[in-house]
Amino acid sequence: MKKNVPHRLYLTEDQLPRQWYNLRADMKEQPAPIINPSTMKPAVLEDLYPVFCKELAKQEMDSETRYFDIPEEVMDIYKVYRPSPLCRAYHLEKALDTPAKIYYKFEGNNTSGSHKLNSAVAQAYYAKQQGLKGLTTETGAGQWGTALSEACSYFGLDLEVYMVKVSFTQKPFRKNIIETFGGSVFASPSDRTEAGRKILAVDPENSGSLGCAISEAVERAVTTEGYRYVLGSVLNQVVLHQSVIGLEAKKAMELLDEYPDIVIGCAGGGSNLGGLIAPFMQDKIKGKSDPRIVAVEPASCPSFTRGVYKYDFCDTGMITPMAKMYTLGCTFKPSANHAGGLRYHGMSPILSKLYHDGYMEAVAVEQTRVFDAAVQFAKLETILPAPESAHAIRQAIDEALKCKESGEEKTILFGLTGTGYFDMTAYASYNAGNMSDDIPTDEELKPSMDAIPKIPGIQE
Amino acid sequence: MKKNVPHRLYLTEDQLPRQWYNLRADMKEQPAPIINPSTMKPAVLEDLYPVFCKELAKQEMDSETRYFDIPEEVMDIYKVYRPSPLCRAYHLEKALDTPAKIYYKFEGNNTSGSHKLNSAVAQAYYAKQQGLKGLTTETGAGQWGTALSEACSYFGLDLEVYMVKVSFTQKPFRKNIIETFGGSVFASPSDRTEAGRKILAVDPENSGSLGCAISEAVERAVTTEGYRYVLGSVLNQVVLHQSVIGLEAKKAMELLDEYPDIVIGCAGGGSNLGGLIAPFMQDKIKGKSDPRIVAVEPASCPSFTRGVYKYDFCDTGMITPMAKMYTLGCTFKPSANHAGGLRYHGMSPILSKLYHDGYMEAVAVEQTRVFDAAVQFAKLETILPAPESAHAIRQAIDEALKCKESGEEKTILFGLTGTGYFDMTAYASYNAGNMSDDIPTDEELKPSMDAIPKIPGIQE
Repeated sequence: MKKNVPHRLYLTEDQLPRQWYNLRADMKEQPAPIINPSTMKPAVLEDLYPVFCKELAKQEMDSETRYFDIPEEVMDIYKVYRPSPLCRAYHLEKALDTPAKIYYKFEGNNTSGSHKLNSAVAQAYYAKQQGLKGLTTETGAGQWGTALSEACSYFGLDLEVYMVKVSFTQKPFRKNIIETFGGSVFASPSDRTEAGRKILAVDPENSGSLGCAISEAVERAVTTEGYRYVLGSVLNQVVLHQSVIGLEAKKAMELLDEYPDIVIGCAGGGSNLGGLIAPFMQDKIKGKSDPRIVAVEPASCPSFTRGVYKYDFCDTGMITPMAKMYTLGCTFKPSANHAGGLRYHGMSPILSKLYHDGYMEAVAVEQTRVFDAAVQFAKLETILPAPESAHAIRQAIDEALKCKESGEEKTILFGLTGTGYFDMTAYASYNAGNMSDDIPTDEELKPSMDAIPKIPGIQE
Repeated sequence: MKKNVPHRLYLTEDQLPRQWYNLRADMKEQPAPIINPSTMKPAVLEDLYPVFCKELAKQEMDSETRYFDIPEEVMDIYKVYRPSPLCRAYHLEKALDTPAKIYYKFEGNNTSGSHKLNSAVAQAYYAKQQGLKGLTTETGAGQWGTALSEACSYFGLDLEVYMVKVSFTQKPFRKNIIETFGGSVFASPSDRTEAGRKILAVDPENSGSLGCAISEAVERAVTTEGYRYVLGSVLNQVVLHQSVIGLEAKKAMELLDEYPDIVIGCAGGGSNLGGLIAPFMQDKIKGKSDPRIVAVEPASCPSFTRGVYKYDFCDTGMITPMAKMYTLGCTFKPSANHAGGLRYHGMSPILSKLYHDGYMEAVAVEQTRVFDAAVQFAKLETILPAPESAHAIRQAIDEALKCKESGEEKTILFGLTGTGYFDMTAYASYNAGNMSDDIPTDEELKPSMDAIPKIPGIQE
């Protein structure tokens, strides 16, 4: 007999996961190693030390340790905003008149407004442990920058945030909130770095990209004494930290005697998706279950669905190592009309490999349909979602409507990564009917795709 | 033996209160009856029907029914965002090095950003039950307008929101969010009403007040077919609905074998404070316990601490009934530099009576000290509080520091009513060192105090 499912299920503090789960330890084939562009050979641990703090570099390279203990100091902060609730979308189900059961794991109930705090706390902790003075990072929509400013404030670290200029302009209050926590924010491209100045010299009105902001943050980190660089997505270490989302979600579903038939997450760099699906993917790889796992990306930045699986730089300035991933080319820049995040040219190497090997699906959705879903959801479930998160809502609704047609009583789980309180400019544009989809044509994608580097003996 | 106290305690769905508690039923003396200004006699139920929907008018006048069942349709929405967590502020306690135990009931984890949704859902439900077409209301900081727009959207009601002009300007995104939920927002004073036009004729640059916005909303309600007016604070019915806060908090503390020595809430119109303290005040009135109960108000709008306990109009336009309450006079307008809400000239008649009879204390705190507390709290507890809520934080910190001095291990409970995501203009001003306290002088208070109406035979 199925249990009575509450609208919100919170684990108790002693049910919280005490370890992060490293999905790589169970993958049948590993993601390709990252390449050091100065040697054109697979990077070794020491190559990463000038950029990342040591413990994080180790986590980045470790594909064998299955579980990492979450340090007590990190747990002390997790306990302040976790567990996040597992929610049953009864009102949405009823409005859709679907036999499907829709669950969502809601990560937005903290001041950063998203799941990003899960990794920010971990990264700031390890930086502090190493005795560093400060950190640099980039931020797109601003959720990562906010999360990191909270974490750095807690651990007493300085912080420089390079914020994609189009978001900096669309979301002025993000700057204020990061500054409230003591961080410094700069619109990227900025004149504070070689990478930024180079771009501004060619195109003074450049609206920025995550790839460019990464170049600037990395440059500042390696040229400033006592600083390191941290990243809010894409990296293996970030997927590791975000596994708390999936571990909590799976535990909560177990308490309800539930298991998802479909797991859906929005995908920009892949951190939320990688974290949410981790324990379900573990089951799938081990043959214990076979859920469909669906990545949802913006049609205006479609790295999975229209990119190629190749080695590419992680940044626009081509100063980072190269990773094998689905990429649109590191010089790709999504339309400035694209709201919110999910604007990265590449994709987590872990997820890229899993997608390439057929363990997951990907769909691209158009911005106006995403906001349709966001507003429908807000009115029924009382949460105003971040545009990023609304990509997953769109797909969950579409899957639930398919169930209505087929009569199948599927169990859907999606990740609701955050809230949209700092995205009101985009909502206002949607309300006014001014939103466009801005899907790049093949011709528009060509220049950045053609610029993907050739690597003798590895990719031509 | 004391139990192990988690950082966050969430009641389970079946532990949620199913009834609202009506504090009036246990008060030894009742608040003075409201007066109908056209008859100068105590208002009767029928006097309220043109303004309020019937069930709410009944709740307003009912001082005998101790518990009201929460309708199932209201519970269905409460379950989407409730329970709110009872939080133990371990990080804050540690930073203050206090022997005090600090608890807070956090009401901000819903899209309205505050406790206001608790009453908005109830009021919209009863309006829909009566077959109304729409509602009108005022909003100060915007939390109530947002909450009501969510509730009206859910129940399919039209909504007109009159928003105090200074907030309308400081918080542009509040308008966007209310519109996203389908509501209409107008800066008050507006040219849509007699009341607004009268004020604009004298002072075209008038920055508005809650009292003025109430006049406009009431005027629109009584002159529009199928509309009624609703209010987010002050009224008895609102204090009734907000009792869910206190009932949940008390229940959660019972599960921890805890009971507060001090209960602290910010006070504007009094709805959060009245709801939070309700079950503790019940104990106090019945002699079961004797917690200190402390109202915290802004020094720039000090109705408890510098107002008088007299009959006054609830609005600036003097079209509402008169209530006996602590008031600064209905034409009082706090400084435009005062951030956030808590800018009402009066105070809940229930709380006014309890304060007058010595059941509670009140303190006024200065804006800069409030923001000091807000930022300290945000950095330690990861929640960016609304400026309103930060008044309670300020007092909780001050009480905890007194405990440090005296060595007393007191248990403090305060209401953290909401989040500050739409208050970044105020935070930016604080960060830049531009915030002022703007405490009115006695001379500045005099005109509005002198304008408090004389009522033959009742007050001269």
